[in-house]
Amino acid sequence: MDIAIIGASGFTGGDLIRLLLTHSQAEVTCATSRKEEGATVDSVHRNLKGLCDLKFTDPETRTVDADFAFLAVPHTVAMNYTADLMERGIKTVDLSADYRLPPDVYEETYGVAHKNYFKAPYGLPEIHREEIKGSSFVANPGCFPTGATLAAAPLAGMAETVIYDSKTGVSGAGVAPTATNQYTNVADSLKAYKWTNHRHLSEMKQELAFLGSDADCHFTPHLLPVNRGILTTAHILLKEPVEQAEAEKLYEDYYRNEFFVRLQNPTLAEVRGSNFCDIAVESEGRRIVAVSAIDNLVKGASGQAIQNMNIMCGYRENDGLVNAPVFP
Amino acid sequence: MDIAIIGASGFTGGDLIRLLLTHSQAEVTCATSRKEEGATVDSVHRNLKGLCDLKFTDPETRTVDADFAFLAVPHTVAMNYTADLMERGIKTVDLSADYRLPPDVYEETYGVAHKNYFKAPYGLPEIHREEIKGSSFVANPGCFPTGATLAAAPLAGMAETVIYDSKTGVSGAGVAPTATNQYTNVADSLKAYKWTNHRHLSEMKQELAFLGSDADCHFTPHLLPVNRGILTTAHILLKEPVEQAEAEKLYEDYYRNEFFVRLQNPTLAEVRGSNFCDIAVESEGRRIVAVSAIDNLVKGASGQAIQNMNIMCGYRENDGLVNAPVFP
Amino acid sequence: MDIAIIGASGFTGGDLIRLLLTHSQAEVTCATSRKEEGATVDSVHRNLKGLCDLKFTDPETRTVDADFAFLAVPHTVAMNYTADLMERGIKTVDLSADYRLPPDVYEETYGVAHKNYFKAPYGLPEIHREEIKGSSFVANPGCFPTGATLAAAPLAGMAETVIYDSKTGVSGAGVAPTATNQYTNVADSLKAYKWTNHRHLSEMKQELAFLGSDADCHFTPHLLPVNRGILTTAHILLKEPVEQAEAEKLYEDYYRNEFFVRLQNPTLAEVRGSNFCDIAVESEGRRIVAVSAIDNLVKGASGQAIQNMNIMCGYRENDGLVNAPVFP
Amino acid sequence: MDIAIIGASGFTGGDLIRLLLTHSQAEVTCATSRKEEGATVDSVHRNLKGLCDLKFTDPETRTVDADFAFLAVPHTVAMNYTADLMERGIKTVDLSADYRLPPDVYEETYGVAHKNYFKAPYGLPEIHREEIKGSSFVANPGCFPTGATLAAAPLAGMAETVIYDSKTGVSGAGVAPTATNQYTNVADSLKAYKWTNHRHLSEMKQELAFLGSDADCHFTPHLLPVNRGILTTAHILLKEPVEQAEAEKLYEDYYRNEFFVRLQNPTLAEVRGSNFCDIAVESEGRRIVAVSAIDNLVKGASGQAIQNMNIMCGYRENDGLVNAPVFP
Repeated sequence: MDIAIIGASGFTGGDLIRLLLTHSQAEVTCATSRKEEGATVDSVHRNLKGLCDLKFTDPETRTVDADFAFLAVPHTVAMNYTADLMERGIKTVDLSADYRLPPDVYEETYGVAHKNYFKAPYGLPEIHREEIKGSSFVANPGCFPTGATLAAAPLAGMAETVIYDSKTGVSGAGVAPTATNQYTNVADSLKAYKWTNHRHLSEMKQELAFLGSDADCHFTPHLLPVNRGILTTAHILLKEPVEQAEAEKLYEDYYRNEFFVRLQNPTLAEVRGSNFCDIAVESEGRRIVAVSAIDNLVKGASGQAIQNMNIMCGYRENDGLVNAPVFP
Repeated sequence: MDIAIIGASGFTGGDLIRLLLTHSQAEVTCATSRKEEGATVDSVHRNLKGLCDLKFTDPETRTVDADFAFLAVPHTVAMNYTADLMERGIKTVDLSADYRLPPDVYEETYGVAHKNYFKAPYGLPEIHREEIKGSSFVANPGCFPTGATLAAAPLAGMAETVIYDSKTGVSGAGVAPTATNQYTNVADSLKAYKWTNHRHLSEMKQELAFLGSDADCHFTPHLLPVNRGILTTAHILLKEPVEQAEAEKLYEDYYRNEFFVRLQNPTLAEVRGSNFCDIAVESEGRRIVAVSAIDNLVKGASGQAIQNMNIMCGYRENDGLVNAPVFP
Repeated sequence: MDIAIIGASGFTGGDLIRLLLTHSQAEVTCATSRKEEGATVDSVHRNLKGLCDLKFTDPETRTVDADFAFLAVPHTVAMNYTADLMERGIKTVDLSADYRLPPDVYEETYGVAHKNYFKAPYGLPEIHREEIKGSSFVANPGCFPTGATLAAAPLAGMAETVIYDSKTGVSGAGVAPTATNQYTNVADSLKAYKWTNHRHLSEMKQELAFLGSDADCHFTPHLLPVNRGILTTAHILLKEPVEQAEAEKLYEDYYRNEFFVRLQNPTLAEVRGSNFCDIAVESEGRRIVAVSAIDNLVKGASGQAIQNMNIMCGYRENDGLVNAPVFP
Repeated sequence: MDIAIIGASGFTGGDLIRLLLTHSQAEVTCATSRKEEGATVDSVHRNLKGLCDLKFTDPETRTVDADFAFLAVPHTVAMNYTADLMERGIKTVDLSADYRLPPDVYEETYGVAHKNYFKAPYGLPEIHREEIKGSSFVANPGCFPTGATLAAAPLAGMAETVIYDSKTGVSGAGVAPTATNQYTNVADSLKAYKWTNHRHLSEMKQELAFLGSDADCHFTPHLLPVNRGILTTAHILLKEPVEQAEAEKLYEDYYRNEFFVRLQNPTLAEVRGSNFCDIAVESEGRRIVAVSAIDNLVKGASGQAIQNMNIMCGYRENDGLVNAPVFP
């Protein structure tokens, strides 16, 4: 199967190519970039030198030729490509935010009216696998909502209040140099940002509602001196106490058949570079602490996109995704 | 004034010496260490070479001769020294946990019966300054309770639930090599630890009660790839909503005269090496996020101990503590 | 082919398992560890949870049953296993230093007499591939000599003096906690160590001699705040000047057919987790700067060991080694 | 004494203010910045909040009123201010490169003709103290030449070849966000840059010549994942061998009376934030390894500038510079 990556010069584009190198059925044959058009892919993604001999092409042409596409462009840009892709029958996973929310919530969250909305499955396979199967267009979740929702899901229905305190690596801020990702502003330091009103909160609330929860939901992210990874500490206040053994059993039952969810004390290093989400849970009675760790570029973006592609196309769900985390 | 540091070979001992080099009234004349007895201080604290010509002496002798002492030994050890020091009229700040809690709570928290209890002021000057003045023995607070309590104090009386989500640098784990502070277990990573039952929770609850709060109090710390610093994100669920302007005013009023509390968006780097505690607050209505940043070895230990000494002895409260944070 | 890893609880053991998961012909069926006997492999190498269901077994038994073995035990220990392995016809790559040097040089370098010496090919395939082919026992090179030798090889015969200034990540110091790998001694810092007499110098000299060089050879390593990787800056003083174009051509010709050597400006991040060695060269006339970057645990240890296994067994040389570097 | 800092919004400006807060005779009364004019200093240098109540003023006015000025603007800009400052009798230390080199070497090195040259002492006090005394204008050395020259000085006259292999923290790249200081390009990585032709080489050669050396001089810098600090490994090939004891004695004699040079095994962490230069030396006979560590923003810039001011004005040479390094 021929794969096109629309917007392939950023971190998620690079990781899509890296991971698809090990896929048994799919091959990247087209990587577009407006900014890098004409350059070799390995001159931008220098880690891929010797492994990828493509050149970046122009994303504007309607000549993108592929069986499957990943949209790895910013929100508000992705929506411009979807009509063409659908018309030409190219199945697609959209890594942007453009199809994750209904248009009214989208407009409220992103301050932009949607120009080309249609309903798409929310591509968190552990929760929406059945909707994803057979679909030809999937909206890949945000990085924070992925880790947060997986941490809270088994207890969602019993929660009164859910507070997600997340800590993310710097790659989440993108590849362009800014004060946010300037080394001396990050290294040996930590700060909170978007303390109360981060855009990903809309997705988190939507997923809690989907899971039957009426809990209040709050979210505060922090910027870590780390390349990759999101650790989310979910402080869950329950309607009724749940003891430790019961909490553990809930998580074991919920994730028993999930290859990518591993129930162990999570650290960012031990999921680095992989599509795993490590989760553990501890009870104080009425308060539960559930912690999840993901690689924001993999399970939080490119890896999950490939997982969705595999489900959509009927491949083995972990094809291209069995690379072990690189520790240390 | 001659200063003795009992247990001077660790991080807090080193920082006491570093900071007291700039004190106008006090001079360290005695630094004890069982392990390093006979060695020069600057062979252990190599950053102090050229600035300190003391040798470590044996802490067991009753011959410690000083006007003021800092106990920088572990909990359960400090209590063995206090009788001697008091008998000889040496004013003391104890950096250990031994006199922070009533004996029943101490035993419950630390699993050890107290052998030599007496009541001492809790040395968080922004809250207990009057008790500290004129006292001859002060219990220096734990690092986490310092940052957490200062973050929540202005809203304590209005809170229903307080969740402290703290992130600490590695120096909090002490100088001895262990799996916890092994570089490859920490760098480019993050993990939560003592998710529900950290020892410092007892101090946090005690301070909330002192501030007139009946809130539920929870605490989860995380280990950061950072040398120094604690960032505490206090998620405060209020009984009644408080809007942004009102929240800010509460903090401004509460800390108006506090030299060491600065109301600005906190980052660890911008308090590094200093006794400052940076705090800011943001309202979502019924949920308030208040974030504080301290240097765990300074405002969280040695600097606050000197601040207490200054108050006890009638010196300028920031004497020895006006060094600016080292950024970047 | 069934693989045994003797001494599998350390970093190189973990990376052997991680990489061999993607090998098309080989499977790890035995992982020994004296210290961790009986524990599951994924309780120690938690990054491998869900990917490896072995338990550590006792390395002392003569019952190790495999077609191929990797010795990942310390020097002076490896030599105790080789007789058994050879007698039982188990092909072996030894990752320790025990068979890299002739016995007299070994004794001089390591201060220990060799108990069980035989001559083995030095497993740097880019230089010794023909000796490795068909061999049943290969001595895997040290991490520093690998990066250093590959940086200097094309110019070795023309050099008068070669100074290797190397910078290594902390994983090179092993998994056991010590003052060397204590986080606060390494993070946000740098130091030189073994300034003049590091054990790996013997291998570097041996390789230069093999390459026909009579150059003086010097080596100083430094400890970086980095998990993985060795960057070696080879300062090469030549007998006669070599201009830039000529230098580049020498390297291109030398490494034209080498999959794992990539000629590009090297950074540690862009080889992270992979078996690649990135090299570039710049001329000042009589002084050449040649810089190489490797992952010390992969091309500097486990990956190169698998590369040797592939050559010894007639497999595709990069089988199990095509995972792309994880950047960032 | 009233101090003006011309160009005070960068890292060196911030550190000048930080350090001068502890000076007994000098006070910063003017901080200029074209970009930040009108903003409070502590809104840019947030670490200084509560310690500095100045606002940035416009550097273009001729109304800068001070007894002493620090030029902390880029090279080619500094030369525009010097005539005004001299005319008005304001003693000055220039932290830029504009007066470090004779005009022909300057033009060759920086590719720009000098518009306003005059000869100024090179402000490396350990070597040029007598020239600095009584001067009213001093050229502050580059960060790399400071550490490198101090490492090699005692052996300069005996050297045949000097190779400086330096490793610098990211603050050396300035405060503006670029690909060079983007976190994910630096963290957990290392690279060499300007392998053969860095601008600071001209100063290094000039200093070796001043010290009576006819040695070949080479320099390659590397970019470390570290906030502050330069470690320089000087590989010195001697005309005649010098044994260890003799080498140590040469350094001890050379630096016996220097407060800021400490002879101990250097690490970046142990000079962090301070004006110290730690040096040690090890002999292999004809090759000597001498390693120095400085904080690039202090001894490599702002601290050394204050040291020069102290010498020029007859103050105690370490006034404002006795703050201990912040370790860890």
